[in-house]
Amino acid sequence: MASEKSLVAVTCTAPVNIAVIKYWGKRDEDLVLPINSSLSVTLHQDQLKTTTTAAISKDFTEDRIWLNGREEDVGQPRLQACLREIRRLARKRSSAGEEDPLPLSLSYKVHIASVNNFPTAAGLASSAAGYACLAYALARVYGVESDLSEVARRGSGSACRSLYGGFVEWQMGERADGKDSIARQVAPESHWPELRVLILVVSAEKKPMGSTAGMQTSVETSPLLRFRAESVVPARMAEMTRCVQERDFQGFGQLTMKDSNQFHATCLDTFPPISYLSDTSRRIVHLVHRFNAHHGQTKVAYTFDAGPNAVVFTLDDTVPEFVAAVRHCFPPESNGDKFLKGLPIRPAPLSDELRAALDVDPTPGGVKYIIATQVGPGPQTLDDQHAHLLGPDGLPKPAA
Amino acid sequence: MASEKSLVAVTCTAPVNIAVIKYWGKRDEDLVLPINSSLSVTLHQDQLKTTTTAAISKDFTEDRIWLNGREEDVGQPRLQACLREIRRLARKRSSAGEEDPLPLSLSYKVHIASVNNFPTAAGLASSAAGYACLAYALARVYGVESDLSEVARRGSGSACRSLYGGFVEWQMGERADGKDSIARQVAPESHWPELRVLILVVSAEKKPMGSTAGMQTSVETSPLLRFRAESVVPARMAEMTRCVQERDFQGFGQLTMKDSNQFHATCLDTFPPISYLSDTSRRIVHLVHRFNAHHGQTKVAYTFDAGPNAVVFTLDDTVPEFVAAVRHCFPPESNGDKFLKGLPIRPAPLSDELRAALDVDPTPGGVKYIIATQVGPGPQTLDDQHAHLLGPDGLPKPAA
Repeated sequence: MASEKSLVAVTCTAPVNIAVIKYWGKRDEDLVLPINSSLSVTLHQDQLKTTTTAAISKDFTEDRIWLNGREEDVGQPRLQACLREIRRLARKRSSAGEEDPLPLSLSYKVHIASVNNFPTAAGLASSAAGYACLAYALARVYGVESDLSEVARRGSGSACRSLYGGFVEWQMGERADGKDSIARQVAPESHWPELRVLILVVSAEKKPMGSTAGMQTSVETSPLLRFRAESVVPARMAEMTRCVQERDFQGFGQLTMKDSNQFHATCLDTFPPISYLSDTSRRIVHLVHRFNAHHGQTKVAYTFDAGPNAVVFTLDDTVPEFVAAVRHCFPPESNGDKFLKGLPIRPAPLSDELRAALDVDPTPGGVKYIIATQVGPGPQTLDDQHAHLLGPDGLPKPAA
Repeated sequence: MASEKSLVAVTCTAPVNIAVIKYWGKRDEDLVLPINSSLSVTLHQDQLKTTTTAAISKDFTEDRIWLNGREEDVGQPRLQACLREIRRLARKRSSAGEEDPLPLSLSYKVHIASVNNFPTAAGLASSAAGYACLAYALARVYGVESDLSEVARRGSGSACRSLYGGFVEWQMGERADGKDSIARQVAPESHWPELRVLILVVSAEKKPMGSTAGMQTSVETSPLLRFRAESVVPARMAEMTRCVQERDFQGFGQLTMKDSNQFHATCLDTFPPISYLSDTSRRIVHLVHRFNAHHGQTKVAYTFDAGPNAVVFTLDDTVPEFVAAVRHCFPPESNGDKFLKGLPIRPAPLSDELRAALDVDPTPGGVKYIIATQVGPGPQTLDDQHAHLLGPDGLPKPAA
């Protein structure tokens, strides 16, 4: 993997994950330990991924980082925590007497370059993919092989769930030092091949409150959040695990919606209250419930994170009809041909019965576009030298 | 009070009340017993009231009711429950050997006419004033003098709080028969003369889910609602009572906002979720928090019931500046001269500092109008014969 001269570079990719049992609130801000366990679905990197190159060299005089081509402050605390943690793990490995392929590397400075294949502005939580990719790339370049949950978690709590493909739980753990607060795969990406994920990107009015500040305020002020974490989530984790294992879409979908709603309920119970859902989000909620009521079963399920975009789960045979329903409720504006991105979706007509059942006044442009994707694998290492985002000089290559 | 010939008519008025500790959910649907106690402010009848005439006559062949001039089905269950209950109380009084001024009246049919002095379409919970007024008028006409909580409650739970002026608590009670689930005055209307109430009437997109159906679904599906009722509300009732007694506006305002938010959080935790707040409601929430942050203290407080309208509490010296802020955020559309109703409000300029602190893109027409009112007295009996809504023939008088 070594580039020419003294530079060692590794390039990795990592996926976005979407929680179906939500993480909201830390019991330890420094160690990023959550007040409850969470469970997520890893999305396929064909549609959404972060690519990160980490390079070390004795010639580097300082740690540096470039995000989407722009150099950023390497001194920001969460990034520093990741770097500190990965170097601690590397030292531990060396001192444990294991073979050390790069005896000097620990003293080397690192250059990091990272890009997303999706617009950051779309409001798709990119920090999870970003920090998972960072942890994964740093581990490869520093020769660390232990569990990376803590490294990723220090960057962004939910990033530890992006370290695995398929269905992933983040066990909250009990220890004060957080050593048992780790991510674990519940089922691999091949487990439920019919499952599809539609991301409905919604026009955001303004940037909502960031999740770090938001969840801290919630922990401090919402009586409902504590109850949720202690008394509701444990049973939901068990139930969601069962639904995934049995591929029970009815149960999976209903619990996914309930847990999203409860997360947003605790945001509203925060003081001052936090509202991530917009009127368009609520219209999507309404659409999903009407769609399911029309079919007499849970055929689609929504979940919302700290923003107005909806992530919709459904099975492959339902996708065309649901997308037709979305088109009916949110007629695409000018970019009709760019409304659907990602996996191909065959056109389907909207039946008169379903149209009547939806009972909506269409909101043109409410949904900007849809990204169709599916469950996908965890982080990957790219062996192709051309994939490196940093050149032999350790600086970002000009964008192709 | 007797009209000519055999007809006896009584006309009463009753107020609207706004809960600051919210009632949401019944433990007994038939008896209308709540899962938690609640506390409300009675609004002044100069701005909002229901007027009801109840008349009995041996010549009436059936019970009949007219609401806002239109005859309605007298057989609806909640109305029937009120009639049954008031007649039971009247019988009890007679059989107790007390003097009975109308020995035959119990067998007489009743005609009822009721009007609101505010548009029902405004979405201001009119059922509380309506059923309180009905209970009060029926009690007068049938000669019942006992506590009317149960009669009003059978019509609409929160109606029992409209039986008193000032600040009123509805004690949930413990008994299975509901005899201890009664309303009680915490402080009279004269207690806090500086308190003002502004009702911000918001353009509703569509009629929201009714509160009866909504709260039943919440009780059945929201884990957070049960926790709220059992573990959060009791302490809040005590704290709110203290705030009222001490006229502590900071405490009163903050707890009012928190309890409104928590009520709406439990609606969102309901499955399918219930959303009563619109984007305009959320803009008002934001405006209030910005306004308070600018002043470094809680000078205004919002509360929302089962609809998008905001009810704002503040003190008299803050009204002009807050109304100027509302005008800035929601510039009145065509009806600029009808934007303010109720108590007169002197114009005030909006300071540049406050304008900057509000940091909003104005939403023209978001607030349709404001009704300015204050704390008011409980139900009244009108002695003027001309006030009767029913003529000597027992039928509604033509509207004046």
